[in-house]
Amino acid sequence: MERKLRVTVWNENVHERELAEVRAIYPDGIHGCIRQFLEAKGDMEVTCVTLDMPQQGITEELLANTDVLIWWSHARQEEITEQTSGLVKKHVLMGMGLIALHSAHYSRIMRELLGTGMTLHWRHDDFEKLWCVAPSHPIAKGIPACIEIPGEEMYGEYFDIPRPDDVVFIGSFSRGEVFRSGCTFERGYGKIFFFQPGHETCPTYHMPAVQDIIANAVRWAAPVNRLSKPLENCEETGLQRGDF
Amino acid sequence: MERKLRVTVWNENVHERELAEVRAIYPDGIHGCIRQFLEAKGDMEVTCVTLDMPQQGITEELLANTDVLIWWSHARQEEITEQTSGLVKKHVLMGMGLIALHSAHYSRIMRELLGTGMTLHWRHDDFEKLWCVAPSHPIAKGIPACIEIPGEEMYGEYFDIPRPDDVVFIGSFSRGEVFRSGCTFERGYGKIFFFQPGHETCPTYHMPAVQDIIANAVRWAAPVNRLSKPLENCEETGLQRGDF
Amino acid sequence: MERKLRVTVWNENVHERELAEVRAIYPDGIHGCIRQFLEAKGDMEVTCVTLDMPQQGITEELLANTDVLIWWSHARQEEITEQTSGLVKKHVLMGMGLIALHSAHYSRIMRELLGTGMTLHWRHDDFEKLWCVAPSHPIAKGIPACIEIPGEEMYGEYFDIPRPDDVVFIGSFSRGEVFRSGCTFERGYGKIFFFQPGHETCPTYHMPAVQDIIANAVRWAAPVNRLSKPLENCEETGLQRGDF
Amino acid sequence: MERKLRVTVWNENVHERELAEVRAIYPDGIHGCIRQFLEAKGDMEVTCVTLDMPQQGITEELLANTDVLIWWSHARQEEITEQTSGLVKKHVLMGMGLIALHSAHYSRIMRELLGTGMTLHWRHDDFEKLWCVAPSHPIAKGIPACIEIPGEEMYGEYFDIPRPDDVVFIGSFSRGEVFRSGCTFERGYGKIFFFQPGHETCPTYHMPAVQDIIANAVRWAAPVNRLSKPLENCEETGLQRGDF
Repeated sequence: MERKLRVTVWNENVHERELAEVRAIYPDGIHGCIRQFLEAKGDMEVTCVTLDMPQQGITEELLANTDVLIWWSHARQEEITEQTSGLVKKHVLMGMGLIALHSAHYSRIMRELLGTGMTLHWRHDDFEKLWCVAPSHPIAKGIPACIEIPGEEMYGEYFDIPRPDDVVFIGSFSRGEVFRSGCTFERGYGKIFFFQPGHETCPTYHMPAVQDIIANAVRWAAPVNRLSKPLENCEETGLQRGDF
Repeated sequence: MERKLRVTVWNENVHERELAEVRAIYPDGIHGCIRQFLEAKGDMEVTCVTLDMPQQGITEELLANTDVLIWWSHARQEEITEQTSGLVKKHVLMGMGLIALHSAHYSRIMRELLGTGMTLHWRHDDFEKLWCVAPSHPIAKGIPACIEIPGEEMYGEYFDIPRPDDVVFIGSFSRGEVFRSGCTFERGYGKIFFFQPGHETCPTYHMPAVQDIIANAVRWAAPVNRLSKPLENCEETGLQRGDF
Repeated sequence: MERKLRVTVWNENVHERELAEVRAIYPDGIHGCIRQFLEAKGDMEVTCVTLDMPQQGITEELLANTDVLIWWSHARQEEITEQTSGLVKKHVLMGMGLIALHSAHYSRIMRELLGTGMTLHWRHDDFEKLWCVAPSHPIAKGIPACIEIPGEEMYGEYFDIPRPDDVVFIGSFSRGEVFRSGCTFERGYGKIFFFQPGHETCPTYHMPAVQDIIANAVRWAAPVNRLSKPLENCEETGLQRGDF
Repeated sequence: MERKLRVTVWNENVHERELAEVRAIYPDGIHGCIRQFLEAKGDMEVTCVTLDMPQQGITEELLANTDVLIWWSHARQEEITEQTSGLVKKHVLMGMGLIALHSAHYSRIMRELLGTGMTLHWRHDDFEKLWCVAPSHPIAKGIPACIEIPGEEMYGEYFDIPRPDDVVFIGSFSRGEVFRSGCTFERGYGKIFFFQPGHETCPTYHMPAVQDIIANAVRWAAPVNRLSKPLENCEETGLQRGDF
């Protein structure tokens, strides 16, 4: 029997505590909702951590035992320390998967891993149609050609990201805006999936199709090969020229 | 002084002759409209050919003297002969640029060069917003972040193309459909740009921003290196093992 | 329990019958060797077909029940009929995986699916170092950073292929030639892997690391989503403008 | 008349001052050599700056008037300040081109723009064959299929970079090592080219083919569209839902 995938959900967990509107949708926090639907899949075990924990919830030991890290952040992104971000980056480059949700596009870790500004256009109180444009991608397994999300924040282009390895989903919004809503990137030995839906005042993570996408992304982002220590510039020694 | 780019516009020229509605928009044919706005740019000279000409307008001599071929086709795509398509394919692989417009997504030459089904969803009588998602691409030079096209045919995903080298534009339509409306592909020594707008009953090619995109695409698709004959599987001879 | 992956190995099987040198290396044919090492993996069941069978070994029923098709061809590529190639292409676009080995770069099916000339440089009697340049790709799972293949045919650039989705392996040869030896392409709903090693006079397919690569490729190329019939251009009907 | 491209060459200029061996090859510094061959092309004007200048040679005014920045660094990469690196990154994301040469793979600016470890394997006292694998790329214009560099440092895979937008050149070395020696990346509105040859003890930048590659890269990396200030997350206001 293969062991279960070890998923860690990191959630800022600020809106849920401060806003009744959000708490009504996610009484156990966004992280609690994600844990519940992922564990129901049967092939994953989920740990939740939040910003208010010691070391902002991120330790070397935790990440060394995490196959895929899911990250939701928004209001307190500026508080993330160099140590927290550096630990996540190190483990991604060594093979740990990373799924950045919604406003985590602008998290410190995404900006440091991808190197671009990660900016976009946005507007509250919209709805979305999410189209699958890469049906052979593992993240698209069993996902309908179009998902209608009744309430969602508009995210619009231009989205300042590097050219994605794959654009799996493109979203459209009420005034004709479009967005590369599901994108993959590989960095070092690790895989990254950015997924745009998930505004805190909308029950998006309760939608089965959205849950399936996130579960597929976890399976896709799990390490293929994993390093035990970071790569280094490495001199080739002990070899003689011409002994190919 | 650099010589002008030699552009050939191939147009089916069927709708223009058969439908007064189309003729009213393009009295000189779609090819005539394209010739006019490209020649006005000053750095291009344009030849027009049409389906009803001998050899369907495509000869070895013409293509050998063409830097970029623009192709508009729709109603008679099934009539294109193996010889016509083969000549175009040969010259693209040797370096000639190719710009396929609108319904030419389903032309014989595009299906043979790209290898996929090239199918999509469509609906008449719509409008489009065209978003630039690759502002550093030469085809995007001077193009606004969003172009509104008042009348256009809807083309919707899933669009059965290979993963494009670049998606420069994404279009959206009235019911939230999205489409990879401006895509690039490189095949052999040649560059290909597919551009979705341009339904025959809409005056799309009279829009300055659309004209700028097509002119940019011509400059981008012009050959970088050009072969004088097709590549062949080629044995490396006269060399001895180990004499690297 | 998940069902086993259904692999079909198509082999030309000409060199094995005609040349004692090849028969000595592959007494059961290249297809027999591949079947043996794939079935030993435990999660695959393998069917073998050869060129000399009715319908060149390729039937609608066979492909409809194949998850991944492996193709080895060389001397008789010109004999492949339009029907054979068309059936394979249809099923790849509907989701069947395809692994093209060695000289199958120039097979009719690869040329029709990829659209380029597929030409390269070659030289017999060489050796190869195969480097993994995409360690996070599923095909690289457990594969060493460098594999030394003591005897192999040189394949050298320029290799006339479309830009691959991923280059997983780059090979080098005795005079400093390089080659994109392991490349992936997605076409329609199907995944394609081209793998260069495997000259018929070399025991390459007996090497465990090469066997692991091919087994990984089968698992990667297995359909994510599979269509029951080819995609068609499809009119959106029954919808009213503005009812987004 | 089009104005000339404004190129700035930033050079660490340490080895040239400290080592007679290097000074003998580059009496005017690596920057002086690059300036000379680029200005001889006729369409570029070149400014040189070095690490020992005020503000490490990098000012807002300089970069605002630079189309393409060329960067050579090695021994003192750790000394580059956050301000220097941040200014360069800001201008790349706004459209300035960047060409990173040789050991600048590991410069602070490349690590911050690309987000990966940028590590590789290396060995002194080798030679290289450099193969063009993207003959339709503007950087390949007029470049031979293979360039032999008699003396060069070996750089070998695995090279920890994001998947490049294009791999234009692959290098091979004396023991069969391979390297993605010419890679492009787009970040924000800016284009980046990394080019591996150019070890300080080898006269590589005196080779005409290498000079042509760098000149081509400058023309390719010049801004297509350029921003006057950094992109920001931007709320769409003043629009009403449904007024598409």
